[in-house]
Amino acid sequence: MSKKVVTLGEIMMRLSTPGFERFVQSDSFDVTYGGGEANVAVAVSNYGLNGVFVSKVPDNALGQAAINHIRRYGVDTQFVAKGGKRLGIYFLETGASMRASQVIYDRADASIADVDVSEFDFDKIFEGADWFHTTGITPALSDKAAALTEAALKAAKAKGITTSIDLNYRKKLWSKEKAREVMTNLCQYVDVCIGNEEDAETTLGFKAEGTDITKGELNLGGYKSVFQQMKEKFGFKYIASTLRESHSASDNGWSALVYDGNEFYHTKQYQVRIVDRVGSGDSFASGFIYGLVTGMPMGEAAEFGVGASALKHTIPGDLNHATLSEVQTLIKGDASGRVQR
Amino acid sequence: MSKKVVTLGEIMMRLSTPGFERFVQSDSFDVTYGGGEANVAVAVSNYGLNGVFVSKVPDNALGQAAINHIRRYGVDTQFVAKGGKRLGIYFLETGASMRASQVIYDRADASIADVDVSEFDFDKIFEGADWFHTTGITPALSDKAAALTEAALKAAKAKGITTSIDLNYRKKLWSKEKAREVMTNLCQYVDVCIGNEEDAETTLGFKAEGTDITKGELNLGGYKSVFQQMKEKFGFKYIASTLRESHSASDNGWSALVYDGNEFYHTKQYQVRIVDRVGSGDSFASGFIYGLVTGMPMGEAAEFGVGASALKHTIPGDLNHATLSEVQTLIKGDASGRVQR
Amino acid sequence: MSKKVVTLGEIMMRLSTPGFERFVQSDSFDVTYGGGEANVAVAVSNYGLNGVFVSKVPDNALGQAAINHIRRYGVDTQFVAKGGKRLGIYFLETGASMRASQVIYDRADASIADVDVSEFDFDKIFEGADWFHTTGITPALSDKAAALTEAALKAAKAKGITTSIDLNYRKKLWSKEKAREVMTNLCQYVDVCIGNEEDAETTLGFKAEGTDITKGELNLGGYKSVFQQMKEKFGFKYIASTLRESHSASDNGWSALVYDGNEFYHTKQYQVRIVDRVGSGDSFASGFIYGLVTGMPMGEAAEFGVGASALKHTIPGDLNHATLSEVQTLIKGDASGRVQR
Amino acid sequence: MSKKVVTLGEIMMRLSTPGFERFVQSDSFDVTYGGGEANVAVAVSNYGLNGVFVSKVPDNALGQAAINHIRRYGVDTQFVAKGGKRLGIYFLETGASMRASQVIYDRADASIADVDVSEFDFDKIFEGADWFHTTGITPALSDKAAALTEAALKAAKAKGITTSIDLNYRKKLWSKEKAREVMTNLCQYVDVCIGNEEDAETTLGFKAEGTDITKGELNLGGYKSVFQQMKEKFGFKYIASTLRESHSASDNGWSALVYDGNEFYHTKQYQVRIVDRVGSGDSFASGFIYGLVTGMPMGEAAEFGVGASALKHTIPGDLNHATLSEVQTLIKGDASGRVQR
Amino acid sequence: MSKKVVTLGEIMMRLSTPGFERFVQSDSFDVTYGGGEANVAVAVSNYGLNGVFVSKVPDNALGQAAINHIRRYGVDTQFVAKGGKRLGIYFLETGASMRASQVIYDRADASIADVDVSEFDFDKIFEGADWFHTTGITPALSDKAAALTEAALKAAKAKGITTSIDLNYRKKLWSKEKAREVMTNLCQYVDVCIGNEEDAETTLGFKAEGTDITKGELNLGGYKSVFQQMKEKFGFKYIASTLRESHSASDNGWSALVYDGNEFYHTKQYQVRIVDRVGSGDSFASGFIYGLVTGMPMGEAAEFGVGASALKHTIPGDLNHATLSEVQTLIKGDASGRVQR
Amino acid sequence: MSKKVVTLGEIMMRLSTPGFERFVQSDSFDVTYGGGEANVAVAVSNYGLNGVFVSKVPDNALGQAAINHIRRYGVDTQFVAKGGKRLGIYFLETGASMRASQVIYDRADASIADVDVSEFDFDKIFEGADWFHTTGITPALSDKAAALTEAALKAAKAKGITTSIDLNYRKKLWSKEKAREVMTNLCQYVDVCIGNEEDAETTLGFKAEGTDITKGELNLGGYKSVFQQMKEKFGFKYIASTLRESHSASDNGWSALVYDGNEFYHTKQYQVRIVDRVGSGDSFASGFIYGLVTGMPMGEAAEFGVGASALKHTIPGDLNHATLSEVQTLIKGDASGRVQR
Repeated sequence: MSKKVVTLGEIMMRLSTPGFERFVQSDSFDVTYGGGEANVAVAVSNYGLNGVFVSKVPDNALGQAAINHIRRYGVDTQFVAKGGKRLGIYFLETGASMRASQVIYDRADASIADVDVSEFDFDKIFEGADWFHTTGITPALSDKAAALTEAALKAAKAKGITTSIDLNYRKKLWSKEKAREVMTNLCQYVDVCIGNEEDAETTLGFKAEGTDITKGELNLGGYKSVFQQMKEKFGFKYIASTLRESHSASDNGWSALVYDGNEFYHTKQYQVRIVDRVGSGDSFASGFIYGLVTGMPMGEAAEFGVGASALKHTIPGDLNHATLSEVQTLIKGDASGRVQR
Repeated sequence: MSKKVVTLGEIMMRLSTPGFERFVQSDSFDVTYGGGEANVAVAVSNYGLNGVFVSKVPDNALGQAAINHIRRYGVDTQFVAKGGKRLGIYFLETGASMRASQVIYDRADASIADVDVSEFDFDKIFEGADWFHTTGITPALSDKAAALTEAALKAAKAKGITTSIDLNYRKKLWSKEKAREVMTNLCQYVDVCIGNEEDAETTLGFKAEGTDITKGELNLGGYKSVFQQMKEKFGFKYIASTLRESHSASDNGWSALVYDGNEFYHTKQYQVRIVDRVGSGDSFASGFIYGLVTGMPMGEAAEFGVGASALKHTIPGDLNHATLSEVQTLIKGDASGRVQR
Repeated sequence: MSKKVVTLGEIMMRLSTPGFERFVQSDSFDVTYGGGEANVAVAVSNYGLNGVFVSKVPDNALGQAAINHIRRYGVDTQFVAKGGKRLGIYFLETGASMRASQVIYDRADASIADVDVSEFDFDKIFEGADWFHTTGITPALSDKAAALTEAALKAAKAKGITTSIDLNYRKKLWSKEKAREVMTNLCQYVDVCIGNEEDAETTLGFKAEGTDITKGELNLGGYKSVFQQMKEKFGFKYIASTLRESHSASDNGWSALVYDGNEFYHTKQYQVRIVDRVGSGDSFASGFIYGLVTGMPMGEAAEFGVGASALKHTIPGDLNHATLSEVQTLIKGDASGRVQR
Repeated sequence: MSKKVVTLGEIMMRLSTPGFERFVQSDSFDVTYGGGEANVAVAVSNYGLNGVFVSKVPDNALGQAAINHIRRYGVDTQFVAKGGKRLGIYFLETGASMRASQVIYDRADASIADVDVSEFDFDKIFEGADWFHTTGITPALSDKAAALTEAALKAAKAKGITTSIDLNYRKKLWSKEKAREVMTNLCQYVDVCIGNEEDAETTLGFKAEGTDITKGELNLGGYKSVFQQMKEKFGFKYIASTLRESHSASDNGWSALVYDGNEFYHTKQYQVRIVDRVGSGDSFASGFIYGLVTGMPMGEAAEFGVGASALKHTIPGDLNHATLSEVQTLIKGDASGRVQR
Repeated sequence: MSKKVVTLGEIMMRLSTPGFERFVQSDSFDVTYGGGEANVAVAVSNYGLNGVFVSKVPDNALGQAAINHIRRYGVDTQFVAKGGKRLGIYFLETGASMRASQVIYDRADASIADVDVSEFDFDKIFEGADWFHTTGITPALSDKAAALTEAALKAAKAKGITTSIDLNYRKKLWSKEKAREVMTNLCQYVDVCIGNEEDAETTLGFKAEGTDITKGELNLGGYKSVFQQMKEKFGFKYIASTLRESHSASDNGWSALVYDGNEFYHTKQYQVRIVDRVGSGDSFASGFIYGLVTGMPMGEAAEFGVGASALKHTIPGDLNHATLSEVQTLIKGDASGRVQR
Repeated sequence: MSKKVVTLGEIMMRLSTPGFERFVQSDSFDVTYGGGEANVAVAVSNYGLNGVFVSKVPDNALGQAAINHIRRYGVDTQFVAKGGKRLGIYFLETGASMRASQVIYDRADASIADVDVSEFDFDKIFEGADWFHTTGITPALSDKAAALTEAALKAAKAKGITTSIDLNYRKKLWSKEKAREVMTNLCQYVDVCIGNEEDAETTLGFKAEGTDITKGELNLGGYKSVFQQMKEKFGFKYIASTLRESHSASDNGWSALVYDGNEFYHTKQYQVRIVDRVGSGDSFASGFIYGLVTGMPMGEAAEFGVGASALKHTIPGDLNHATLSEVQTLIKGDASGRVQR
């Protein structure tokens, strides 16, 4: 029977300009729906697991459209509560070459921020579950959302479910200080921690040296030092980070580093020609979770995650529609892109 | 030299599904920008007047896009302040036949709601102005916006500028009680009041009998009684209302009733096949204002307004792109729609 | 708890030209997925019931896309088998005025035609079910599909589940003779029979006189005679037919006649301005089923069905996205199409 | 063997705004190619005749695209000369309800205006031809184009080919006086003359009274008087005119009146819901020509022409993509628009 | 006078997702029509030759649309038979970077598979012809199609027309064994054989060593060995193969190797940034045929073919719309892509 | 207060095929409006300056649409005269890889070519102006347009306004000889001259050696020699040229060389992945002008110009929508294209 992976977080409407149009010149938007945790629920469902997404959306046609969007890809949405004021929105303008993509968030007062723990029956939600995943975005949305996140993590731990968090610091949502306080508390319930160097510093206060992410060179040494500090403080079972070399908005290097407290594993690095890089971190998380929950050793799970997310860069939207067999083919070494007939 | 018409209010992003798609099935939105007062500023600019729009939008690319949208049609936007949290949004799904169009507002915390009178220099704004127009939507947005509306009306009156208001009651923005209190105060500064029966009742407390707007039959008698009460209480120079006979979402009858305290004038009624009816009330207001500010007698101005807004029903978007000569041709009696080569 | 309605049949890819373009001039197709029984499963799910769709699709991305399309709207697709050769396709060109819509079917060798009863576990499928619905299209696809239909009807009857069939004769799929033989056999397991006069004649051999469907005049007398013959022979609990007055491809009259062996009920007739009439029969069926399964008396269920399907005519695609409250508003008498804000 | 119908004239690029957008608001154009005589060549090819189009287009990718567009629909384009300055363009904005469609011509200096008779080998062009058709637009383009028209008509007459002309007066191309002079000369070579009352007056100087085309009422008496004068002066074998009742840009009455010098025949009148009325006159001409060249009596040919052109109103673009069997079905009386499966 | 090149094969409807969308997420398809032999007929017509395409399509609007599509580009389609069950379809999802393009064929029971030699008059078809081309796809479609291919090759040879075949092994259509049997027989009538190493092995049984096409390195030695074996067995006049280095779905190296039994010629290699690589093999074939039929020496013809097909990679759709002069400019060395004004 | 920059020239309608479609295959065009001088007016307005555009457009909806397009981006269009025959058009097909973009001009008889100096009040236009810019395209349009250009330059010089010209030789508009005569005269009023080597030779007669622009290698030495000759003859204050290395239609190297009569400055070179390279020269000119008019030293202004125009290559349309802060970020060294949230 399929493993059950529960995720909890916000689902937003994503409005993106077509082609490479800028906001000021565009007269139409492509509409999809996504968010860190919803993206993970879709991706693991896509690999054949039982993905369950827990959230809250407004009780109107837009909230329904958000539910529909992930239901379409097989996610169990029965635990999405309805109510609150509005659906969070984010606007995306896709960059190219030296022009960066722009994201404008319009997520204040989203329904999920105005949430109460009582709206969710975690006994039922976690029944038979194997994994629980959330991100550092959810507790940043509001104190109520932070309380919900904590309640969910506690409930999962109480049932012996493996838990993971993607740190995902969002500076427009909260201060470093607030983030550190809340996240430090939440991390005590976490088994698997995903987050890049920047997140580790802002969110958890661990500092690595010598990495200038603008320049796009990898600083593995710095990462390793941070991972060791994280392991020491929180006792995470696994710590992982994707490593992006941003050559331009069109071309990136992409790999991941993982750590089990014992050894470090740096995956193959892919050079990706970017179609849409939004959600690539989530696609790594879902691939890594897929690997671990189905019993792969750490390194193999990391390769699965990094291959999956390399493919995500070529797919429009937040969601990763790469299939299990496509990921497997890629990580076995065929990146030739020859036509499949 | 062109007459100068100043309007003040909110400008929102309008996101509408293409064709007759419903929200739950659509994967793209057409994007335009509009709002009651912005629509009037565009329409009068389109007729050759000097339209000036006063508002506040966020200091980001979306706020700029809203400004650009009306600047494109000739509106002077130099007095649009920048700041605040977000651009208000409204979602539109266009109905057909017995299926009604749906509007979902997402306008809470729009920049214009978080506004201070000090952000605007009314001496400069009203320099050389001939008319000031706003609607009952603006004061409904927030107490600050209501204060701004009052300040603008007072400043206009102090300069001897003709003022107009479109009552436009929005039940999701405020209660009847709050609306009556605020609007009753504002109406003392108003020369020309536009509003249908329903608005007159909810906003000002005047009640007509026997009109059941669902059935789509006109109750001119009820309107006249309400207009007389309004005249008596506020001493408006002109009172006007459009009269819609809603046969279906596709076909409407459309006319207007105007009153100068002395005589009533009921315009020609048009049977319109609807392309997009949003903004039709604003297009009447702008046509009526155009007529009055350029010196037409009341009946002629009303015919201009109703012809202009009949044409608006055939044009996508909130804005009325009918030209002066098109309106004139129509009100002279040519509604044949023959190809113009 | 929600009623469970199971439907069984084919789901096809629908490729339609945009706007009113003809096949020979179009360079793009809009893609949706639907079919008589899938449409019913979506519509009842949309009203809050537990819709379950049973079918077979090819094990490729197109089969998955078909599943996704109805899963998006809440249908339980866990019993859709995968395998076989291909997904059936139908091409649609939407007509206008005196130009009729054109449908080109390309459904031969669809996966569902190459099906074996053993691929489905009807015990599980019908567990807790309240209603089973299929159409005369399914048995017409192949002998195997006919055997599946019979097996499903028998299994449903054995569990005491109410069964319904929409006759839906398709002359390109089988001969009248074959249709009569197969359908006469199947009808012994049917409680509720839906089908127009033409279907009744071709499929079951009942003949009414004096109705010339091209001319679009209703012949209620003829229908009543046919319904009585059907009742007599098969003992159906309810017999129903929609009645279309085809004024043109753009405007139709639309109502329904239902019969319970005792009395006839002719619903209100709607004049619909057509956006997309494909699936209107299915939307009547789903509304009528919704009414009956939730306990409405026959006439009320028929009004619900006819109101629901009147709204369907205004919605692009095969599926009815009208909501429960929209249908209720319409059948209470508000067809004015006024904007809902 | 198929009848051969040769037409001569301009082919233009047509740029139209999508949906009902106006020029000032549109950011994309739909592109097709057409013109009075090209439209006729396409339509008769569509009915199975051998349509040949003679013209001149610039020797660039746009000229090629114009050729491709009609070649796609089966027209023989081997005699289209290449050279000259540019392809004529016309811009179209589709109206609705009381808003008229707008056409902006940008055809000055088109290649066909800068043409020499020597560029065409009429012996070869007319080899085996049965019919030659042109319009009053071609000679209006330039003196050279008028000379070409005359040469073509003379050559056709010399070979005993039936000739037809659609008067089609275009006031922006030439004065009434010039038109009368040129057209009076050309008409001596014409067998079949098509043109409405207005054309007859402006182009040939015949005046009917009492028809106010704006009001949309038919004045058959006036037409008959004009037809008789035309017959008397030019000895045309057949004279025909379409009769449009312009209720609005969305709904028109549509019929035709034809005359053979002996009797008048007024066809059935269709009420058409308009999708695109450009090219409707040409579609009548092609239907009428098709009827006559294949041996139908005048009245039958006129019914074919009017049925064909009624269908044209429902098809986007200049070209009539109605098929032979669709026209036949319509003129036999089925205008019900029921779905063809 | 232009050389006449006849091709025979299937024409399919191509349905491709827009942008880089995947099948499971797309709601519209771009529609074109093509197939190996149709693509060659279009390309040679585009270079000014008289391209003739022989095939069979269903007698409906879709079959007509397929004909229209290549007729648009100047191909003579008078010998396309009408009848049979359906138009073959293929679905295309365009890949990027490490994500491969996906093709799903849905071509079973296409009209061309149900064909009889008697439907074609090869005397007429080959009258004045200079070249006949087909591919290994056509005989793979059905035994009837294989018989037709043989009949056509024989008829061409009997008239002294040069014949060519592109091996194009399609593993989903037939087994290696069947392919070898049929193709070995057909090759006796072939002058020019085009096919890559893989095709040569599967179809004709010739094996080269050391080429791993996944890795994308060229193995010229292996090719040469295979070519020599092919020459020896079948006595082909020319043997040619394109050589693709698949760096990713976005970037490929592209060249060709040709052999006349005497010397090998390896063309310039282009590095192509891919827009649409479908049909690139056909565009090489058409360029090589163009070169040979117009009298170029082998090497020059090969350079023309490879330059033409390099350009094809930049053009959407199956068809090569590169012009003669564009190919000539490129093979003369200008690949700078500077704007042509 | 913002600097005022006046530009004078033509504004054209730009019709471009979507995606990478070629003219012969496209059924829609994207519509924007632009031209060398209009593009500069938009870009400097975008950076916060007061951009004023002087031109003439036809008095119809298309002329209005052109005005609207740049008014949308903040340009003062009050001095655009209305009249004349038509709006110039240019057609654009975007290339990729080795396929060059194609531009087809259709600008003969544009309104701006039929212009009289008296239509413009230069006293008013230049009131408070800081800079005047035009290009070598304007005088090439007609003798009248050349006279207008001279009058404008003289008026600007008389008022002490800095003047600049972009040589922009267009061989389809005039001969080298005519260009040299006219431009040599105009250059006496010019302070800042922009133009590449080719323009310098054709327009002014200065010849550099050893640069083969097809090969894409820079020949700085040649440029320097030409700049020195230009300085000597005309006494320009600054001379500038962009330097393009055309690797393909998809990838270019891009930098600029500037000279103040004293020292040469060669900017950083960017490797750009091209979205739309039209208008890149204008975007350099506007950036360079912005820098100089706001007081930057020459080198800094050149870096600003080259950074701005590098970004332009990534933006669809003629206009540069890069913002001030984006240009500043880029020239400070961050070309990483990381997502901006």
